[in-house]
Amino acid sequence: MLASVQRVNGSAHYITEDDALAVEEPLEIRLAYRVDGRAEHKPISITMRTPGNDLELAAGFLFTEGILTAREQISRLRHCGKGAESGSETNTVVVELADNVAVDLKRLERHFYTTSSCGVCGKTSIKALSTGAAKLNAASTHVAAGVIRSLPGKLRMSQSVFDRTGGLHAAALFDTAGELQIVREDVGRHNALDTLIGARFLAGDTPLGGKVLLLSGRASFELIQKALMAGIAIVAAVGAPSSLAVELASEYGMTLAGFVRDDRFNIYTGGERVV
Amino acid sequence: MLASVQRVNGSAHYITEDDALAVEEPLEIRLAYRVDGRAEHKPISITMRTPGNDLELAAGFLFTEGILTAREQISRLRHCGKGAESGSETNTVVVELADNVAVDLKRLERHFYTTSSCGVCGKTSIKALSTGAAKLNAASTHVAAGVIRSLPGKLRMSQSVFDRTGGLHAAALFDTAGELQIVREDVGRHNALDTLIGARFLAGDTPLGGKVLLLSGRASFELIQKALMAGIAIVAAVGAPSSLAVELASEYGMTLAGFVRDDRFNIYTGGERVV
Repeated sequence: MLASVQRVNGSAHYITEDDALAVEEPLEIRLAYRVDGRAEHKPISITMRTPGNDLELAAGFLFTEGILTAREQISRLRHCGKGAESGSETNTVVVELADNVAVDLKRLERHFYTTSSCGVCGKTSIKALSTGAAKLNAASTHVAAGVIRSLPGKLRMSQSVFDRTGGLHAAALFDTAGELQIVREDVGRHNALDTLIGARFLAGDTPLGGKVLLLSGRASFELIQKALMAGIAIVAAVGAPSSLAVELASEYGMTLAGFVRDDRFNIYTGGERVV
Repeated sequence: MLASVQRVNGSAHYITEDDALAVEEPLEIRLAYRVDGRAEHKPISITMRTPGNDLELAAGFLFTEGILTAREQISRLRHCGKGAESGSETNTVVVELADNVAVDLKRLERHFYTTSSCGVCGKTSIKALSTGAAKLNAASTHVAAGVIRSLPGKLRMSQSVFDRTGGLHAAALFDTAGELQIVREDVGRHNALDTLIGARFLAGDTPLGGKVLLLSGRASFELIQKALMAGIAIVAAVGAPSSLAVELASEYGMTLAGFVRDDRFNIYTGGERVV
């Protein structure tokens, strides 16, 4: 989106010109399913996202939050049409579940107070916060230190195509040789990751055991949790990890690298996968 | 928090040493109040935050979300003690309301699906997303361009004391002469702002009309909304604003500057306050 801005420099010169803005709009995700023959229509989540990959985002969100486990559980994935009781054609996605799919409503309760950057329940232990990811296989995947160092440069080359605004977070999936597989961008970093994982989930390509995930910013608890749900064993972040992110990665056997920039990085946990 | 990390540099040298991590833990905010003589205890929100200013965070959250409007509405603000049904002594805050305070439960419904970085309802228009902020007075406050350019440097000097982790977002309040009033840091940028505003709210210092807010990162819709609730007329962000942030700032008459770095900045809306 273009906006007129005044640029002010050191000598207080003003130049008025057009500037590209990262688009941010709310997306409501709804679940449609049947309970005892009755049709239920339940709003699950609202997130501020960059439009463009809403179906992937909705599917990825439901998958990384542990509500769905296989794409076959979705019978139809669509935007709400005009005339729906709320939301425009583009800012509400309905996920229709297949008839035989049992929805864990208790798990939805967790989302009662969910947040787009921190889907947690009221408990304070990692176990209670968990969405039910499995521990990773220690010997499953290896990656060269040089490959990890090369990832931000590859992401930047890819981002220059998409992000001219400086306002988007990115999540990118690489193979262990450092080949870029898929990149997704969004104003919300959790959305970028959900959209990336959702694309793979809808393609039937999860779990993502042999892949390396690069995050353009910091690594929070929730991003690590989402990566674990997708079975990603190696996560590299351009920014810093939080204490709880490191704790969770360690608990589940994930390799977590941070500050991947300027040809350096730190390994916080799971160093045995880095060769 | 200190963690042992392996540092990997360009020649793949490994150095193992201690590294400081930004602490991230969940905080549950609960509201305690009376309805028709009955005591109600309602969990309102869970957010991933850096511990340390929980009471300010809880008060600021309730204020910027439009649930509370004056500090007198709070009779007591405390951490849940040991033995409470859930949460540890430090990760749950109870906000006890004064007897005569009516809680707008409909407004709480908005938080049914709230998110820590995007407290929105399912509607797509800014009016429907609004927490009920008032429009700002156009002529209320002015600031020199040179003052705006100076803010990130002042924040960095202040942050160097607090943030050795690279993992914290900051919100800082300055007067229009560029004097730093208060700074708050958190793993969540919304929390940093809620904590800052909460500190002023509890001190009886809101609204913050004559102040300039600096955000260490990007300016999202929700951050602008929170600043509007506190009556802040001038917001400067080191990062990019989103489309909806600019739209909201424009609608309410806020001055919004972005990319405040390297002795430059962009004015997106409200340029008449910058002299």
